[in-house]
Parts: sequence; C-alpha cells; structure tokens
Amino acid sequence: MSITNNLKWRYATKKFDTSKKIPADKLDILKEAVNLAPTSYGLQPFKVLIIENQSIREQLRDAAWGQSQLTDASHIFLFCNFTEMGPEKIDNYLKLRSEINNTDVADTKPYGDMMKGQMAVLSSDQISAWTAKQAYIALGTLIATASELQIDSCPMEGFDKVKFDEILGLKNKGITSAMLAAVGYRSESDDTQHFKKTRKPIDEIFETIK
Amino acid sequence: MSITNNLKWRYATKKFDTSKKIPADKLDILKEAVNLAPTSYGLQPFKVLIIENQSIREQLRDAAWGQSQLTDASHIFLFCNFTEMGPEKIDNYLKLRSEINNTDVADTKPYGDMMKGQMAVLSSDQISAWTAKQAYIALGTLIATASELQIDSCPMEGFDKVKFDEILGLKNKGITSAMLAAVGYRSESDDTQHFKKTRKPIDEIFETIK
Repeated sequence: MSITNNLKWRYATKKFDTSKKIPADKLDILKEAVNLAPTSYGLQPFKVLIIENQSIREQLRDAAWGQSQLTDASHIFLFCNFTEMGPEKIDNYLKLRSEINNTDVADTKPYGDMMKGQMAVLSSDQISAWTAKQAYIALGTLIATASELQIDSCPMEGFDKVKFDEILGLKNKGITSAMLAAVGYRSESDDTQHFKKTRKPIDEIFETIK
Repeated sequence: MSITNNLKWRYATKKFDTSKKIPADKLDILKEAVNLAPTSYGLQPFKVLIIENQSIREQLRDAAWGQSQLTDASHIFLFCNFTEMGPEKIDNYLKLRSEINNTDVADTKPYGDMMKGQMAVLSSDQISAWTAKQAYIALGTLIATASELQIDSCPMEGFDKVKFDEILGLKNKGITSAMLAAVGYRSESDDTQHFKKTRKPIDEIFETIK
C-alpha cells in the first residue's frame, strides 16, 4: 500500500486485541524511526518510556480516566520531554556529533555557544514547550511508521500528566510526560474502526500564496 | 527502501537545487499525508500555507536570517496554528464528522460541550501551545512521507515569527506561524549531505519499564 493508504487505514484505536503483541523485530523498527525523527538542532530533547509492567499500566490507566488502551495495547510509548536544557546537554550533543563524524569538537564551540545562549534566555516553561514540540514530531514519525507496518496506534493527550509523572518518578529524571501512543493491533470488536475518517477538505487546510 | 532507510537517507537539507520542482502528483501526496495526520480530537487546528510567490519568499528569507532554503527549495510548507479555538470551531468539526458518517449532529452535543468546556478554561497562550503541537505531528508526517517519495526536506524553526506573521497578514486570519518545512531536492553541492547523521544510541532515547 502507499503511505497515504496506510494513513487512511489507521485510526485512533479505542479497543486493542490484548492477545496480539508487536514482534521484537517490528518494535525495533518503530524505535529506530522515532530515533531518526528530526528535532531542532538535532538535540533530541526527550526520552520515550516503554511501559511493560502491567501493574504500572493499571495505575496509568486510572490516571487516564480509565481508558483501556493503557492496559490493552501491545505497547505504550510515553513521550517525555526534557524540562531543562543546560549547557551540558548541548556539549553532549556536540561531542556525539564530533565522534560520529570524526571531527574536532573544539571546532563546534561557536555553534555550541550560540545554542547555549538561545536556551539561557528561555524560561523553564518555554523550554518545556519547545522540547515537547520536538517530541510531537517524533510522534508523527511513529504513527506513520506504525501504519506502514500495519500496526495500529492511538495517540493520547488525555491523561493526568502530574499523576503520570508521580507514578513514574519523572521529576527527578528531568523529564515530564508530554503525550503517549498506544500501539498494537485493533480488536475485531472495536466499532470505531468502521467509522469514516473525518478530515477537512484539502483546500481548507492548505492555502497557496501565489 | 524501507521507511527507516528512507529516514536515514533524508537530512536537514541546507542547499536545494533551484532547478528541480516537486511534480504536482507528488505534491498532492504530501498534502494528503499532512491532512491525514492525527490531531487531538481530530480538530486539525492549523493551516498550512504553501508560499509560491518568489517576492514574498525573499521577504521571508530576510526574516529568517537569510537562510537560502526559503527561496531555493521547490516548496515552502508554513505550518500556522490556530490562535483561538472558539465554540464555532468545535461545531464545524462535529458538523463535518456527522456529514461524513451520515449521523445526526444533535447526538454529538455532550461531546461538543465537553470539548468546548476544555477549551474555555485555557488561556490564549495555552491554546496556541496546544494547537502548535498538533501541527508538529503533521510536520513529522510530512517529513516521513517526503522521505518515502525521495523528496528532501528541511524543517525550520529558526525564523522571526512576528515578522512572518506580519508579512503574511496572519493575525487577522486567527493563525500564527509555528514552523515550516522547506521541501524539494538537494543540490549536488550541498556538503551537509555527506555528513553522518547524529543520533543518540537507541538505549539512551528509550527506557523500558519492566
């Protein structure tokens, strides 16, 4: 199928088949795609927690208005954005980039100073808003990749982020939950799969400035 | 190629080949993919301006620290998020959904009231932060789709949003520029295509909670 047909095939899955698990090789592809998603300056200012522990998944479900995807999907990808972007994060990125490209990290100092200067003037709320946006690009990449692999998904913002952060002890890790994607396989009894997809006409989303 | 190989093939293109234009059929696929991207509640709270006018593209380049992608890429997709989410936007969505599914829009009133209630308590900054995030999912979808079509891309946040909004008269349209993607074909002389992609080890991005 073409990528647009795959995107049409997918839908926000409400009820997952609890008996079907994403095989390890496909899970690796999903992870690699998330890791390949572009981010501002290439900084990748987020982590993704994959929650396998069923007891924790039940707690998260309680903190997400009982939505069954939390416990029933094959996997939960919880995107957590960095809450601070101190200079050491920039240095780590530049060190990694220099190692990979076999170049001298000292040459990157002006570029690093520029990035550090940009971060330094942002409030912590602004930092979090910006790092979260980068995670949303990766979410888009994940959903598209899953659909290519005929893996169902349900992106979700509807959960209590404060409770999620508490349950998972994220504050001490310098990250906070942004949103999540439940991924797996649709249940045959999920009626929502039969609804028609609602999208605006292309000409309402797009405007060409000639 | 597989989707991950396509994502590896792409890079943040610095120099586009000005002689190569994306053909109309492929442009339609990119637009359709953006329109198929998931958004919270399916509300699609953004527009995408495709800037073809070269004089405007030169003005935008000046407001983007002279970055050549603004004038040299085949197309500019400027993602603009809604700055307000009044009740009429919710009603329009529910009307569209009911029409597409041939159901009675009156049945959606409780759902609509819930969404309207959620929007009503958000400040305009919170609305904009949330609508912008939805646009970032679509950006991720666009970049993945372009790479599948072997179309190059450069997502960009580095521009003066206030100036962009002024040049394009966005304020009166209830939208504001979030970020953009320059899309087209790499120039053979773009040295950055030969750099190795910098990505963290998978185990640094992902953590499995067992």
